Amino acid sequence: MHAPSAGIFGASGYAGVELTRLLAGHPSVRLAFVSGESWRGQSVADRTGVSGDAGAMRYLDVEDALAAAAGIDCVLLATPGEASMALSASLSARAGSGKIVDLSGAFRLRDRAAFEAAYGHKAPPAEQLAASVYGLPELSRAVIAGTQLVANPGCYPTAAALALGPLLRAGIISPNDLVVDAMSGVTGAGRRADDAYSFAEIYGDARAYKVLAHQHAPEIAQTLADFAGLTVDAIDLTFTAHLIPIARGILSTSYARLRTAKTSADLTALLRQAYEGEAFVRVMDRPEQVDLHQVQGTNLCTIGVSCEPKDGGRVVVVSAIDNLLKGAAGQAVQNMNLVLGLDERAGLTDLARSSS
Amino acid sequence: MHAPSAGIFGASGYAGVELTRLLAGHPSVRLAFVSGESWRGQSVADRTGVSGDAGAMRYLDVEDALAAAAGIDCVLLATPGEASMALSASLSARAGSGKIVDLSGAFRLRDRAAFEAAYGHKAPPAEQLAASVYGLPELSRAVIAGTQLVANPGCYPTAAALALGPLLRAGIISPNDLVVDAMSGVTGAGRRADDAYSFAEIYGDARAYKVLAHQHAPEIAQTLADFAGLTVDAIDLTFTAHLIPIARGILSTSYARLRTAKTSADLTALLRQAYEGEAFVRVMDRPEQVDLHQVQGTNLCTIGVSCEPKDGGRVVVVSAIDNLLKGAAGQAVQNMNLVLGLDERAGLTDLARSSS
Amino acid sequence: MHAPSAGIFGASGYAGVELTRLLAGHPSVRLAFVSGESWRGQSVADRTGVSGDAGAMRYLDVEDALAAAAGIDCVLLATPGEASMALSASLSARAGSGKIVDLSGAFRLRDRAAFEAAYGHKAPPAEQLAASVYGLPELSRAVIAGTQLVANPGCYPTAAALALGPLLRAGIISPNDLVVDAMSGVTGAGRRADDAYSFAEIYGDARAYKVLAHQHAPEIAQTLADFAGLTVDAIDLTFTAHLIPIARGILSTSYARLRTAKTSADLTALLRQAYEGEAFVRVMDRPEQVDLHQVQGTNLCTIGVSCEPKDGGRVVVVSAIDNLLKGAAGQAVQNMNLVLGLDERAGLTDLARSSS
Amino acid sequence: MHAPSAGIFGASGYAGVELTRLLAGHPSVRLAFVSGESWRGQSVADRTGVSGDAGAMRYLDVEDALAAAAGIDCVLLATPGEASMALSASLSARAGSGKIVDLSGAFRLRDRAAFEAAYGHKAPPAEQLAASVYGLPELSRAVIAGTQLVANPGCYPTAAALALGPLLRAGIISPNDLVVDAMSGVTGAGRRADDAYSFAEIYGDARAYKVLAHQHAPEIAQTLADFAGLTVDAIDLTFTAHLIPIARGILSTSYARLRTAKTSADLTALLRQAYEGEAFVRVMDRPEQVDLHQVQGTNLCTIGVSCEPKDGGRVVVVSAIDNLLKGAAGQAVQNMNLVLGLDERAGLTDLARSSS
Repeated sequence: MHAPSAGIFGASGYAGVELTRLLAGHPSVRLAFVSGESWRGQSVADRTGVSGDAGAMRYLDVEDALAAAAGIDCVLLATPGEASMALSASLSARAGSGKIVDLSGAFRLRDRAAFEAAYGHKAPPAEQLAASVYGLPELSRAVIAGTQLVANPGCYPTAAALALGPLLRAGIISPNDLVVDAMSGVTGAGRRADDAYSFAEIYGDARAYKVLAHQHAPEIAQTLADFAGLTVDAIDLTFTAHLIPIARGILSTSYARLRTAKTSADLTALLRQAYEGEAFVRVMDRPEQVDLHQVQGTNLCTIGVSCEPKDGGRVVVVSAIDNLLKGAAGQAVQNMNLVLGLDERAGLTDLARSSS
Repeated sequence: MHAPSAGIFGASGYAGVELTRLLAGHPSVRLAFVSGESWRGQSVADRTGVSGDAGAMRYLDVEDALAAAAGIDCVLLATPGEASMALSASLSARAGSGKIVDLSGAFRLRDRAAFEAAYGHKAPPAEQLAASVYGLPELSRAVIAGTQLVANPGCYPTAAALALGPLLRAGIISPNDLVVDAMSGVTGAGRRADDAYSFAEIYGDARAYKVLAHQHAPEIAQTLADFAGLTVDAIDLTFTAHLIPIARGILSTSYARLRTAKTSADLTALLRQAYEGEAFVRVMDRPEQVDLHQVQGTNLCTIGVSCEPKDGGRVVVVSAIDNLLKGAAGQAVQNMNLVLGLDERAGLTDLARSSS
Repeated sequence: MHAPSAGIFGASGYAGVELTRLLAGHPSVRLAFVSGESWRGQSVADRTGVSGDAGAMRYLDVEDALAAAAGIDCVLLATPGEASMALSASLSARAGSGKIVDLSGAFRLRDRAAFEAAYGHKAPPAEQLAASVYGLPELSRAVIAGTQLVANPGCYPTAAALALGPLLRAGIISPNDLVVDAMSGVTGAGRRADDAYSFAEIYGDARAYKVLAHQHAPEIAQTLADFAGLTVDAIDLTFTAHLIPIARGILSTSYARLRTAKTSADLTALLRQAYEGEAFVRVMDRPEQVDLHQVQGTNLCTIGVSCEPKDGGRVVVVSAIDNLLKGAAGQAVQNMNLVLGLDERAGLTDLARSSS
Repeated sequence: MHAPSAGIFGASGYAGVELTRLLAGHPSVRLAFVSGESWRGQSVADRTGVSGDAGAMRYLDVEDALAAAAGIDCVLLATPGEASMALSASLSARAGSGKIVDLSGAFRLRDRAAFEAAYGHKAPPAEQLAASVYGLPELSRAVIAGTQLVANPGCYPTAAALALGPLLRAGIISPNDLVVDAMSGVTGAGRRADDAYSFAEIYGDARAYKVLAHQHAPEIAQTLADFAGLTVDAIDLTFTAHLIPIARGILSTSYARLRTAKTSADLTALLRQAYEGEAFVRVMDRPEQVDLHQVQGTNLCTIGVSCEPKDGGRVVVVSAIDNLLKGAAGQAVQNMNLVLGLDERAGLTDLARSSS
């Protein structure tokens, strides 16, 4: 059997570079092309340090990449939302087009009005939305495997939904008093030629951004509703994102209320059971054991939980991911593996044999 | 009139060094002695770079410092809680002893059982507690001015109580659904010879600590109760502290619920009115305008608020302080100024004429 | 006597912001205007956090600032070199114009051919050059005081020349085997909206830049020649600049050869004698005691020296400055004080009463 | 054929953890034991995040590890020098003992007097020294392969010798005017419970250390002499190490003088020829292209060179390595591969499939 092939649009962004590295090292998928307007004509080796066949590739412009996508088994879009909509429409219109994994927010929200409020631009056509599946493997692995278009989850939603989802599904916490307070490294904002993201402005600083207006809030709510089998309206959630002066990693602290008295050990056991067999979720004994070093450079999500052991007691769940891996490119490869019928873990283990 | 005099115990910790710098530059208080066992005999200039008379001083051991404290107008204790209890007892037992400002947690909690649960050691004697006043000037300036012993507030409680206090006092938010989620730079943990606080362990990392068990949680609750004229039992508060890889600064994000519909502009106006005339509190137009750079090296607390404009809507208040200044040494000097009858701002403005 | 007045062009760059802070807090100079095209119309308080009268000022455009400069005692130019040439010509052409301190490289090199090779654009007219003085107070204080136009030294040249100058002047080291290897924080490159200076690119990285081609190399050589009473040709110097991931500070390590056997103690004593009475130079016992923390936020240069105690032995001198203060705005205020006949230290001591 | 086996002493230090990760992921060597007194009894998974069989191992104390070393094909010592001497003596005394790769400085200097001056403790016995080989594969691959005991090079010597070695060997630069000025991240100092290495002390700071007294200076000189076929006395070298606030990476800038006129292109071509076929050395077009990001998490050394194109012109060579990989654990695995007769690159490529 021939190796399945993959191609990348938007390969010059931070997530695109990670995708390139992951696919260059993938044991059973062949990287067929990379596209990135700003690096057009340059070699992958020069821009990313990747060696071998992948390193010898050159970045294509969009037109050439669309031509190169013919017959490719899976196309990964690490492009802004509007570009992703246009590209997925173009790709789907061609005969024999392959699967698509889109890393933008374009196809994540099923409610088009909520989408337009969150993103400030037009939602994709209803039929395109209907053909897509939200790609959080730990929530809906089987459905993802059969879809044509995977909407790869956002970074904050991945960290928050994996933390709270199983507790909501088990009916242990109330859906109507949720707070998610999270901090992210700077690559979460994408590659920027912007004084506000210059080293001197970020170094030693921290701040909240898009308070009560972040586009990931409705995505977290939708995903938690899916976990719990509820409608989005049943979720009352407040989400705040903070920028901290590190390169990569998200630490997310989620707050909920117990519906009946439980202990921290009960909740830890429930999370462990929920994630039994999952390759990329690790439940720690205590929330203080969750940190960014343990996830940076990996596709892992680590989770720890503690609670006030009484009716109505507060639950605190801390979770951590690498925003560019489990929060973007790593999860996209996980989804690619699923749609291609490969081992979900292929190319994603032993990423951090040497950490920094 | 002669210049009032001050002395410092615990001058070798991070807060003690800041106190030393502030008092060396104070326009109307004379620094009379500094004590710090680990730097005993060394000069202040060598350890802190302070020049002039203060720089020429040498660190005393505790016995010599107690002798030197006789006749001093104000003694500042930047010592651990148990040392603060012993020192304040020793100092108070001497005839003609001056005022005391204690930067530890020893005298902050009025409830001795809560104290012992939070700190894990014995609370101070009831009569000593009764003689002390919690020193948040923006809450109780007049009472502080007349006390013998000021309990200087904790860093997180300062940031959180200044953010939520006026809203609670005005009855605009519910006291029974409060979450405070805050992040601090590493000096907040004090000077440490501990591998866990080494550069390589902290750099690029972030984590929560003492989840649901931080000693500042009851202090925040007590202070908010005082703002609102409620008993501590009326406050239902969850507090989480995080360590982020910067040297100094606390960014605190507080969550509450509106009791009746208000707009973000209403809340901003209320905070501005509450802090009118305050030298060290600055209310920003929006919570995204609050950041650490603007407070580092200053005695300022900056605050910004936003809300969902409906009954029961969530309120998000972001506040920032320098943990070593408004969160420790700066506020201690503010309290010292009050007990000595000086201008509260003396020695605390223009701190950051050159920032880094 | 009325307070002398000063105005700033280029106030929106990093050095310009420092100048603004320094002048806002200056005890005897009145800040009359600030100009910065990119912040035109905004208030100084909003952009810098400076309070009081200076904070209430608004940034002028260049035309309005030129009008405002009439009758001002000293104008500071924190503008790029070509703008500085144009502005100083405009200012000098007006009757009754005040003194000028220029922070750019425009007037630093006396050799116009060397200038054009280093900067890649036309040197200023010979008569303008002839009317200017290179403003390193520790080298030529008296001449500076009488000049109309001060060329404020570059950051690397300040650190390197203060380190090597007295040793060369004393004839202790050879002028023909000098290496200066220095590292700087990112503000040294100025405010940039450039992906290469974004946080994610700089964080955790380090690199050399402009190897054998840095415009500060001829400036260091010229200044060392001036110290030693030699022609520039007699100086054989190699200079390498490195970028390290911090906000501010320069650490410079200089290498030379002894002409006759000396000890480290000899050299330390010679430097101490050379800088006796200098307010802003501090000679440490050993080069390992020089670090960035001790100079950040101050106008200090710290220096330490060690050598192989034999004929021809290598000398290593380590020096540190804050690139925005002694390396730019602080030294500019020192020069302004000199040309205005004020105490050279005015507004420059106690800058770092609270450090970060 | 059965897989060769390896064991690690000193596995709890930074280099030891890297060794553990590398061996856990090695394609053809079986990790048989790990020893680290401070982590005795804990699991490798808990301390390092390594999964699989290696993760399930527990850290042994030294006695148990010595027993476990019987019959092991290669033992790696990531221990302090004195421990390495004792362990290698113990191991060699046992029948059928395997090869040893020692990461300490114990066996690197052939001159025992120079050793004792540099390290301040007794050199190993002459016969033990005589049986060891300095393990820089790019210099002496064939000899390494046949030895019993490999002295793995120091981090700074690796970076400096790879930069200057081929130029010296070709007779292009003078051996008697060499300066190496290098900066290292904090892991270079090893794991420390020391206030001087705490985050708050290091953050934003930089300094030189052990000026004219660093133990790596004679090692660099010896290695350069070996490259050039000279005696150590023929090398006149000054080396300065600096600490910068990053976790890992060494950037080394080396200075020499041309013996006859050459261009930068000549030198680049010579380095490319010298390293043709080398898997772990990459020669860049220009020294400004060398940076830490490109080597962090990899076993690479990148090098760039520039010169003044004239007789006696200065040569500047910039080189970069990851101090824990090519500067320690990675090079140790390279040496282990050589002594075990494996592909030198085994387990060392694709280390940084995901960078941070």
